Amino acid sequence: MGNNESLPVRSDLVGLKPYGAPHLDVPVQLNVNENAYPIPDVVVESMRSAVDGHFAGLNRYPDREFEGLREHLVTYLHGVNARAGQTVELSPDMIWAANGSNEVLSHIVQAFGGPGRTVLGFTPSYSMHPLITTGTGATWRSSARSDDFTLDASTVGAEVAEADPDIVFLCTPNNPTGTSIGLDVIEAAYENCSGIVIVDEAYAEFSRPAQASAMTLLEGRPRLVVSRTMSKAFACAGLRLGYAIAAPELIDVLRLVRLPYHLSEITQVLACTALEHADVLLENVDRLIDARDRISEHLSNAGFSVYPSDSNFVLFGNIASPHELWQKLLDRGILIRDIGIDHHARVNAGTEEETTAFLTAVDEILAADPGILLESN
Amino acid sequence: MGNNESLPVRSDLVGLKPYGAPHLDVPVQLNVNENAYPIPDVVVESMRSAVDGHFAGLNRYPDREFEGLREHLVTYLHGVNARAGQTVELSPDMIWAANGSNEVLSHIVQAFGGPGRTVLGFTPSYSMHPLITTGTGATWRSSARSDDFTLDASTVGAEVAEADPDIVFLCTPNNPTGTSIGLDVIEAAYENCSGIVIVDEAYAEFSRPAQASAMTLLEGRPRLVVSRTMSKAFACAGLRLGYAIAAPELIDVLRLVRLPYHLSEITQVLACTALEHADVLLENVDRLIDARDRISEHLSNAGFSVYPSDSNFVLFGNIASPHELWQKLLDRGILIRDIGIDHHARVNAGTEEETTAFLTAVDEILAADPGILLESN
Repeated sequence: MGNNESLPVRSDLVGLKPYGAPHLDVPVQLNVNENAYPIPDVVVESMRSAVDGHFAGLNRYPDREFEGLREHLVTYLHGVNARAGQTVELSPDMIWAANGSNEVLSHIVQAFGGPGRTVLGFTPSYSMHPLITTGTGATWRSSARSDDFTLDASTVGAEVAEADPDIVFLCTPNNPTGTSIGLDVIEAAYENCSGIVIVDEAYAEFSRPAQASAMTLLEGRPRLVVSRTMSKAFACAGLRLGYAIAAPELIDVLRLVRLPYHLSEITQVLACTALEHADVLLENVDRLIDARDRISEHLSNAGFSVYPSDSNFVLFGNIASPHELWQKLLDRGILIRDIGIDHHARVNAGTEEETTAFLTAVDEILAADPGILLESN
Repeated sequence: MGNNESLPVRSDLVGLKPYGAPHLDVPVQLNVNENAYPIPDVVVESMRSAVDGHFAGLNRYPDREFEGLREHLVTYLHGVNARAGQTVELSPDMIWAANGSNEVLSHIVQAFGGPGRTVLGFTPSYSMHPLITTGTGATWRSSARSDDFTLDASTVGAEVAEADPDIVFLCTPNNPTGTSIGLDVIEAAYENCSGIVIVDEAYAEFSRPAQASAMTLLEGRPRLVVSRTMSKAFACAGLRLGYAIAAPELIDVLRLVRLPYHLSEITQVLACTALEHADVLLENVDRLIDARDRISEHLSNAGFSVYPSDSNFVLFGNIASPHELWQKLLDRGILIRDIGIDHHARVNAGTEEETTAFLTAVDEILAADPGILLESN
């Protein structure tokens, strides 16, 4: 990016580096919170059949309002809510979708943020929240989580009241810490501002016992919006499909800022197919939860500090040098994430084999150099 | 959209209506400048084979830098330039791509526009240019084209010098007028400002004899960027793939504003497949040019004013009431576009049968009511 000073780049972009984990082609990739399991054969077969009739007609623009996809998302969410014993009235006009939840969040912040407006988040959290915010010209303001990365209602309520933001981001389970928040925290945020409250539930399907979704709070809260994604539990990161649930009035506003025809015909068809196979695709969620819990227990026993995770990844601390640990694992063909929190790193749950490879490598590295731990036990 | 006053919507969005042509399910759709021809069987077959190996791996994020697609676009453009006798040095780091050229343009305006900056366009032109501009918080400024919708170098140079914009949009062939501009107009815009000059060549493949592309001006002009799309000549509107060509430094800046993994795995694969079949897909371009010329000649003979078109559509004037004509055609199952220019409408070239249906309907409507023409001949 050294050259961009010669171009009339927007002043706040000068000198910045693009977002993104290093892409390295190694055997065990545990760095970007992907679902470790490929799409099962039965779903692959359905995807193949589903797209087949849609190639010839690609000369036409796709459905700008993705009506079939909205219906499919409502059906899926009704199932989620029924299983959780949650009563939520949903309809297609309460659903939004875009190319990944980043784009969903971007639409919301474009509609309700922008120049002169303030967006509040509780950090550390998903690093795209501030980037999406400043990308719209809004001001990012962050409030630090407690030392164990939890949030409570009284603190959040007070911080929100003090900041009086136009938008509040709450991420639960939170990336990169894995921690969940209670509904009382969301209510406290909502009650203490007149802005939009975004609850980013990208990893919701990985919480056990299931946390109540912020969807259950939508009734009577027109400023609340819940975002989710098919990249994680649905194993569809490569498809790029995020979605959001909110009151029809809020969803309708997003039509003002999205680019027309933002969802391709093929994306819409394949997302519908994946949703029809929700049961099959979500079977691997339990396996990933087992792997996550195995990682947490193993790392804790090995002397790392481990934070309770409701997601498909684990944040662990008490690392003398995260970069050194990252490099030593990479030397063994394993990629984790140095997320820029001092003495911490993040690893996502892999397949059983990948998880074993990671834990074995950690044991070997520790045996060779106990100084990997910041403080020995 | 009546309800959005109750939500804290960004002030400049209050009361706005979403962009977009009415979507009506009628037999002859000539309203959104699509390619009238479906994807040919041989390409459908290749698309089917190409995606087949990519479903299982959708659990992984796609290539953030779409390297294979960049290579394919370079190969296609080398062919274009060779056939046109144009010498243009291209490399993958000079290529950008996104979900439709709207997103490409949006990335450019996000990077070089934003609050406090000014974007200049020459109207009437593509209606998304001002929407994309104001979406970034930049100010839209427009300069009116001459009465016949052409632009000349001295006028454009003077307007640009006077406005001193951060970004200039030039669209050639221009939507919705169909008119092309010479390279001298682009040079005049470039020389008279220190901002970015965007040449939107979405319809370039439909110009006959081929106009020299603004690509030929890239050498030594780091602030120039040419955008194109696969939605029109390539008949891939449903796939959503736009692209841009510029100096590597400019392309690199766009990585700061795009959302990571913005192009799905499937979009990348199918776009590559379509590009491999450029020769087959572009065969229908000649048919559409014939249809366009037939429309122009017929409408002109019928008493409408017709503007020379280098695109796959025709703008025609001397219509007493565009809305009335639009409705009468719709009553006959034919959809054209009322683009909001007094006494004008736009129709895109259809298949031979669709074109015949449109022209026959116009003749019938005129025979029944000669008052459709603003001024009789």
